[in-house]
Amino acid sequence: MDVGAVGEFGLIQRLAALVGRPQPQLVVGIGDDAAVWRQGDAYLIATTDSLVAGVHFLPGLHPWADVGWKALAVNVSDVAAMGGVPDFALVTLALPPTTSLAAVDDLYRGLDECARAYGVTVAGGDVVRAGELAVTVALLGHALTDARGRPLLLRRDGARPGHALAVSGTLGDAAAGLELLRAGTREGPLVAAQGRPRPPLSLGQEAARLGLPCAIDISDGLLQDLGHLCRLSGVGAVLRAAQLPLSEELRRAFPDRALALACSGGEDYQLLLAGPRQVLERLAQRGAAPLTIVGEAVAGEGVRVLDEAGQPLELAPTGWDHLRRP
Amino acid sequence: MDVGAVGEFGLIQRLAALVGRPQPQLVVGIGDDAAVWRQGDAYLIATTDSLVAGVHFLPGLHPWADVGWKALAVNVSDVAAMGGVPDFALVTLALPPTTSLAAVDDLYRGLDECARAYGVTVAGGDVVRAGELAVTVALLGHALTDARGRPLLLRRDGARPGHALAVSGTLGDAAAGLELLRAGTREGPLVAAQGRPRPPLSLGQEAARLGLPCAIDISDGLLQDLGHLCRLSGVGAVLRAAQLPLSEELRRAFPDRALALACSGGEDYQLLLAGPRQVLERLAQRGAAPLTIVGEAVAGEGVRVLDEAGQPLELAPTGWDHLRRP
Repeated sequence: MDVGAVGEFGLIQRLAALVGRPQPQLVVGIGDDAAVWRQGDAYLIATTDSLVAGVHFLPGLHPWADVGWKALAVNVSDVAAMGGVPDFALVTLALPPTTSLAAVDDLYRGLDECARAYGVTVAGGDVVRAGELAVTVALLGHALTDARGRPLLLRRDGARPGHALAVSGTLGDAAAGLELLRAGTREGPLVAAQGRPRPPLSLGQEAARLGLPCAIDISDGLLQDLGHLCRLSGVGAVLRAAQLPLSEELRRAFPDRALALACSGGEDYQLLLAGPRQVLERLAQRGAAPLTIVGEAVAGEGVRVLDEAGQPLELAPTGWDHLRRP
Repeated sequence: MDVGAVGEFGLIQRLAALVGRPQPQLVVGIGDDAAVWRQGDAYLIATTDSLVAGVHFLPGLHPWADVGWKALAVNVSDVAAMGGVPDFALVTLALPPTTSLAAVDDLYRGLDECARAYGVTVAGGDVVRAGELAVTVALLGHALTDARGRPLLLRRDGARPGHALAVSGTLGDAAAGLELLRAGTREGPLVAAQGRPRPPLSLGQEAARLGLPCAIDISDGLLQDLGHLCRLSGVGAVLRAAQLPLSEELRRAFPDRALALACSGGEDYQLLLAGPRQVLERLAQRGAAPLTIVGEAVAGEGVRVLDEAGQPLELAPTGWDHLRRP
């Protein structure tokens, strides 16, 4: 049997069973947006993500500086989803010897812009030869703590029946931007959402300070990531389609498919948060980023999307699985 | 111009200039075996290394379990070269969907064996689709500290004229093992040195406790890594060929090329240490790993290897450059 048959998430479960072991310092292990490790009085947050040419970006279509920006931003998104503070990054560049120096310079310039925007220091890394270009970033940070030194963490498994669900920013723009990019468009807000995702880092930290229990970053599509959150929390969820935050640009560019792109498009790098409604409302008022309540967690399992009449919509909960064959 | 023209080390210098910035918490940045970051009272050590199929290992020749072991071990070697303690790892597996599950299972089993041997916890990672298999490990650890809480670190730039130079274990075995593997040999100590490097972690920690100032891990060949150490320390070096530690197996299998393999073969994952001779002698007596004094740092620059008559030997200081064209 090959890995395509079990898919990305099946493979991760399998590997976690092989290497995952409880350890007193390991506060959060495999399965959340990032790992959390207690080191002295600090709670370290660590995550890693890769962008592979031809899989996560298309050379010739995605500008190299955007690839660099995104390679770091997708990791910042994981730290944001824990409510943490990113500190320093290690950058591994795998590349063919024929890669142009100008491309690599641009990639690192974009990465550096993202590092400055989010207060991250590039502390090291590795350069290796490979048949195809790939950038892997490991991002280290730390959790905020309360007055007694306990970590304030947003976890994937923290949702309970009755919690409200909220999403930051707007959804579907990045997926729409990819389609536009493929069709020849080179600028505009949708293309920018695809090339330069801006995870709402301050929002995640505000949420942690308010004691919110639960978040996940929306990287593989809202329905799929909500599905992960529900499974790990042992709850179901109801979403109201009319409340999903869709940008004007998305509605205008894809009037018939805006909702589908928002539900399953992927690469939003926004946050999906779960917690008491009044806490989410307070968080929205603080204004770190736009926040919209879109539904609630319920007893049971599975995700239902309701139309304005309260009738279930047929939306397949498909999203990104990097390995499974279609 | 392409990256093959500037080579691995030229490219790293170029990228460090683009993204490297001083930061108060960054104790050791780009250019050493690992980065060191101050987080509260702790000094975190962070490093990352990749193994790419067809470049760093040969599928069909290197057993998958050995690939997994080595993917972590090469990172443990970096932490050992700082005198630190490894704590937890993030593992990124890039692979084609056609990769067999059995191969991935074996790879993770080998990685897990190495994690147990060195007290490392696998805390997370990523699985991504790619055209070729590659394993990237980011390893986090911490520095030992003295009674006043200051970090005890072995740095690449700590050698001074008059310091003795010592190497751990034996050299050249891994490179010899690769040749044997290619010729069809499947076992024996040389093949084991190639497949399952065992960096002398305790030795590095003992060296840090004794206040030794300087080390580098020998991954690209003794002469090349000593060259890095000399350049960063602003010293030259003299090695005595007759004192280099060569295993019986290496001398027997490659009687004519044992010295060349020991000087430039690469993949030893032993430590090269520099410091006062009496400190190195005390370290050797502690017995954490075999240690041999092989020469000394001198004023000036460049590395000379002397024969038993004190005459310079002609040995090109070649080693691994992952990008430069031959």
